[in-house]
Amino acid sequence: MNLALLFDEDFIADDRVRLTGRRLAHLHSVLKVDTGDEIPVGRVNGDIGTGEILHLTDAVAELRVRLDRQPPPALPLTLVLAMPRPKMFRRILQTCATLGVKDLWLINSYKVEKSFWQTPWLGDEPLRDNLTLGLEQARDTVMPRVQIRKLFKPFVEDELPGLLAGKRALVAHPGTDTPCPSQLNQATALCIGPEGGFTPYEVGKLAEAGCEAVHLGPRILRVETAVPVLVSRLFDACL
Amino acid sequence: MNLALLFDEDFIADDRVRLTGRRLAHLHSVLKVDTGDEIPVGRVNGDIGTGEILHLTDAVAELRVRLDRQPPPALPLTLVLAMPRPKMFRRILQTCATLGVKDLWLINSYKVEKSFWQTPWLGDEPLRDNLTLGLEQARDTVMPRVQIRKLFKPFVEDELPGLLAGKRALVAHPGTDTPCPSQLNQATALCIGPEGGFTPYEVGKLAEAGCEAVHLGPRILRVETAVPVLVSRLFDACL
Repeated sequence: MNLALLFDEDFIADDRVRLTGRRLAHLHSVLKVDTGDEIPVGRVNGDIGTGEILHLTDAVAELRVRLDRQPPPALPLTLVLAMPRPKMFRRILQTCATLGVKDLWLINSYKVEKSFWQTPWLGDEPLRDNLTLGLEQARDTVMPRVQIRKLFKPFVEDELPGLLAGKRALVAHPGTDTPCPSQLNQATALCIGPEGGFTPYEVGKLAEAGCEAVHLGPRILRVETAVPVLVSRLFDACL
Repeated sequence: MNLALLFDEDFIADDRVRLTGRRLAHLHSVLKVDTGDEIPVGRVNGDIGTGEILHLTDAVAELRVRLDRQPPPALPLTLVLAMPRPKMFRRILQTCATLGVKDLWLINSYKVEKSFWQTPWLGDEPLRDNLTLGLEQARDTVMPRVQIRKLFKPFVEDELPGLLAGKRALVAHPGTDTPCPSQLNQATALCIGPEGGFTPYEVGKLAEAGCEAVHLGPRILRVETAVPVLVSRLFDACL
């Protein structure tokens, strides 16, 4: 927790917050703060700054906050991910939030197992909690928007062309001849398939919608590695 | 397992191997192969190619292998990592192997907790097993060399200057003014600190040894995210 992310319900006055639960435990056990200490804080979808510990007990911490700086810039990226295996999913959510992804679409694909959609991590609260952890890691405040589309074809035919308008559109696909471009640093939409990749049919449909298939070299990466590798390659000036 | 990595003890003739254990289970439960099918294989520290399933039972698989291509190129990187928290360590090992890191040094640092060095994952066999999983993911065969240095000062004073000879040397340090360079694509040594970073004393010692401190922007990344982000930024032509 490189920053404590503050939500509306934490505020008891314009410049006062009360923290309990996970964030309080972190103040005690990791940061080991005392009254008078300052910690980095940020208001969800707002500015970042510092919080001074006014009172601290085992039950609650009260802080006076001063929010006077903007959070780091967002990536100009629409990330379309085939729904990952649940045991990877939490970590991928956190990584996306840490890297500054703000527009995340989770879609179906032939190799996405039906059971993946049953994971409790897709609930509103677990989604928010894991994105919060990722934002706190990066000292960011802007909550990513996550959209879930459990049908591939209607998404790709009806929604994706609109999403791609005005953007460079790519699909990461190990089988193709074109290497992934570097340092685009422009509005981009990027599709990443499941373990085993999109099927040829799916790559064809993504191409029809306007996505160019690109590869990352001979190494096949797990999705959780491909996301930071691709983000770093496409947006070195934005990280 | 995008490739089955073969060890000397698997070979029963020049072109025949027997697989048991994890790799056999994967053939049955994930790849669902039959006699006559071919799978990608590679010999540790040797070539890659295909293996044809000759016999398959619940106890053993026998394959005829043809190894006729080189594995993907290695990264020209010496990676010096402060020993990560054990629950992250396995994943980081696998990620390093997948990305093509061949020269990995695990070192001590003030913020590395003593208990981290007690992890069973540092044993020879678990190290090899996790690096194997990372290589198999990337269809690589060349086993990374892992060196363990539990004393910071003797390593940095006596060994590091020699390691850096002929290389661009960097230490990733969030507090500094110089942004990390892009697309070096040359022999490089890169030091990455623990959670919370190297101390100013440690950054000073690394600088004395020849490392330039560079940052990755305002976002603070977990080590497991920083490794692929930095590798992708430094070596886009090598991935």
